[in-house]
Amino acid sequence: MHPRKVADSTVRRLAIYLRFLEEFADQGADTVSSGALAQRAGTTSAQVRKDLSFFGSFGKRGLGYDVPALGARLRQILGLTRRYRVLLVGAGRLAGALAQYAGFAARGFDVVAVVDRDPAKIGTCWGALRVDDVDRLEKIVVAERVEIAILVTPAEPAQQLADRLVATGITAILNFAPVQLQVPGVVEVKNVNLAVELETLSYALQHREEN
Amino acid sequence: MHPRKVADSTVRRLAIYLRFLEEFADQGADTVSSGALAQRAGTTSAQVRKDLSFFGSFGKRGLGYDVPALGARLRQILGLTRRYRVLLVGAGRLAGALAQYAGFAARGFDVVAVVDRDPAKIGTCWGALRVDDVDRLEKIVVAERVEIAILVTPAEPAQQLADRLVATGITAILNFAPVQLQVPGVVEVKNVNLAVELETLSYALQHREEN
Repeated sequence: MHPRKVADSTVRRLAIYLRFLEEFADQGADTVSSGALAQRAGTTSAQVRKDLSFFGSFGKRGLGYDVPALGARLRQILGLTRRYRVLLVGAGRLAGALAQYAGFAARGFDVVAVVDRDPAKIGTCWGALRVDDVDRLEKIVVAERVEIAILVTPAEPAQQLADRLVATGITAILNFAPVQLQVPGVVEVKNVNLAVELETLSYALQHREEN
Repeated sequence: MHPRKVADSTVRRLAIYLRFLEEFADQGADTVSSGALAQRAGTTSAQVRKDLSFFGSFGKRGLGYDVPALGARLRQILGLTRRYRVLLVGAGRLAGALAQYAGFAARGFDVVAVVDRDPAKIGTCWGALRVDDVDRLEKIVVAERVEIAILVTPAEPAQQLADRLVATGITAILNFAPVQLQVPGVVEVKNVNLAVELETLSYALQHREEN
């Protein structure tokens, strides 16, 4: 029913449209135009219509989109009608921030466990979470029914940890380690590199100065 | 000399190619093929050649790219031949992780100041940084010669803070607040939404289960 091969950039925009639909719903709006969605999401009306057309027919010409209906449909498309159990691999500062990040729980992503290899960190408590020994990774994935792993380690141990996660049957990894992970095709990996985001800004500054 | 309108996705890939070129250089490699770069960056040889062709002619047919020369050129294109002074707006957990994030300093981004509105945070020290009062934002931007601001606040105060940053003359903002900022065209804003990254994974899990 759904096309299998939808670009990552499209999926990311759907997630962003959903945020604005929820804002509009909070403000009591019943309908929204593709133009209004486009403006908020920093794209064009044509792009909004194209992104949504992948998933069927929405909206009526001249009337715009039904806010609650489109929101419900986007939640369904994005797999957000259920909750997900998430494991943090690595217990550094960034992992600590992610464990407390309200945006995750609000979207249905529950951090249920944290592991690290550092004896100084193992056994410490983060709210209701207790940092566990990475040696117990496989046991924890099973016991906690983990579905998504977030890898927040330096580059060096990341591939080996990814191999261990894949061996447990985990098929979704959000990778903050600065390394391209090699995984079987069935495993989805999304990379987040915060320095790359800053580099798109330095690029813009550099090219403005030249012009 | 450089095309003004290069897609964000291209710039992000250039930053990723640079990482792998530096790895290859560390391993003593003199040349690299577009295929090897593509494999590491998770893209195709054709895409690598296309991305690089925006910026002139690199590499010789059959010989691949010269690793040090291409690395130097990418650093120049990305504006990484100098350092940037960065202000963190917001002193929560995520800001704390960013302040200590080694990847920023390694790329030339120096966090030189942090501001917050919470009296409990103002005056506390983060290593060599002291959290300052957000009321002093404008003074700090001038005194510290800030060029890039990272907004790490909840949604509610973000637009007003962005307006104040823009009024100081700041033209580059990395925005972690879950809101689309309205800024003049001369200001570059890049948005990072960590929940959206997880949602591309829940999308993949959802659609795998359906197939």
